Amino acid sequence: MTKALLYEGKAKKVWSNPADDHSVEIEFKDSLTAFNAQKKGEFKNKGAVNCEITSILFAVLDKNNIKTHWMESLGPTLIRAQKVRIIPLEVVVRNILAGSTAKKMGRTEGEALKKPLVEFYFKNDDLQDPFVSDDQILAFDIASEKDLVELKATALKVNEVLKKIFSKCDLQLVDFKIELGRNYKNELMLADEITPDCCRLWDVKTNEKFDKDRFRRDLGKVEESYIEVLERLKKNKSAF
Amino acid sequence: MTKALLYEGKAKKVWSNPADDHSVEIEFKDSLTAFNAQKKGEFKNKGAVNCEITSILFAVLDKNNIKTHWMESLGPTLIRAQKVRIIPLEVVVRNILAGSTAKKMGRTEGEALKKPLVEFYFKNDDLQDPFVSDDQILAFDIASEKDLVELKATALKVNEVLKKIFSKCDLQLVDFKIELGRNYKNELMLADEITPDCCRLWDVKTNEKFDKDRFRRDLGKVEESYIEVLERLKKNKSAF
Repeated sequence: MTKALLYEGKAKKVWSNPADDHSVEIEFKDSLTAFNAQKKGEFKNKGAVNCEITSILFAVLDKNNIKTHWMESLGPTLIRAQKVRIIPLEVVVRNILAGSTAKKMGRTEGEALKKPLVEFYFKNDDLQDPFVSDDQILAFDIASEKDLVELKATALKVNEVLKKIFSKCDLQLVDFKIELGRNYKNELMLADEITPDCCRLWDVKTNEKFDKDRFRRDLGKVEESYIEVLERLKKNKSAF
Repeated sequence: MTKALLYEGKAKKVWSNPADDHSVEIEFKDSLTAFNAQKKGEFKNKGAVNCEITSILFAVLDKNNIKTHWMESLGPTLIRAQKVRIIPLEVVVRNILAGSTAKKMGRTEGEALKKPLVEFYFKNDDLQDPFVSDDQILAFDIASEKDLVELKATALKVNEVLKKIFSKCDLQLVDFKIELGRNYKNELMLADEITPDCCRLWDVKTNEKFDKDRFRRDLGKVEESYIEVLERLKKNKSAF
């Protein structure tokens, strides 16, 4: 039996594992997309860079008792991960205001929030991932009340660990998006990826951006920024 | 001393009361607006019709132990009301899906919700009243946690009373928007208005619309529908 493509997303492919029903192989692609894939790009080795960043971060999260789907590395762009049913919510944590929420509320990008703000977006490309309230999530059976409590608690724990990691790398964690799912034992765990595609990372001294906003806003040095994040993570790895 | 115009909104004017700092006069205008005032209209006596509808509904709510700002009638388009500091949230309750939430979630208009859904929109014309979650309301200091609990409980109580009233009039209460404020004693109360401008009302048998969607969607018979709502309320008043 050969492996079969289960799902192809904007930045990753997910393959079945013929030897094991409970795990999958995830391949990180070189493509870059923004604005619900209306803007497209790519750079060579982006998949490998993001695969390595995710692997480093998920290992530290695991060490901090946060369950993740990551199992082992299978190559520069390939990991083995637990198979999960993804909860169709993008969970966003914001420490500093930027992006859609700053715009919606008429606030200045860069304004610090008094405490981390958790937001949910309904994962649905056709509907352009609309922002949803807890009550809407329950009304439309997107997740249960128990799920919401667990998602928020996990998101805030992930935020604390990531903030420490990135601060050691002289990067401010402005905000990030995660996705979570449940494995065959119904255990909730972090899935997907954590990379500059779904985090805003600003240099602590210069506020220079090291994330997908360089691509979204045509700021140049996209590739260099992703590589710089990986380099800073590798250099400071022993301190995490 | 003469009364002074304190505020002019899209459908009402608010005047000071020189004899009493704690009350205001509210005048219902004949204007009709939709889509954040991008679409404008009016009809003769609309102010009087909405003033009378609000007065009837607020009296029944008051009888059901829901505090409102309504004090007395001062004329066909004019009421005296308690002066309140409005909490800058539009509180929406939905029984049946329609409008922006149906569209956002890709659902069919007319789908019944398993229980009433409460939503909050940040009252800000410049930002076009964005939909906000409880956590965003707290993060941006729009209201307190205590406010949110009170607002939701009051909104659901108002829904129960209004559903009964309109069902006696052979109208389904699809959804409605209310605004609440605190008087000088810091008591929370219903303010603003309850009229076909801010309720969706469908005939129980024909599903015909008797609300502002007739204006929003150019369905005709706008004036006739508002008058019909008032007539049905007056006819069944003794049953409320």
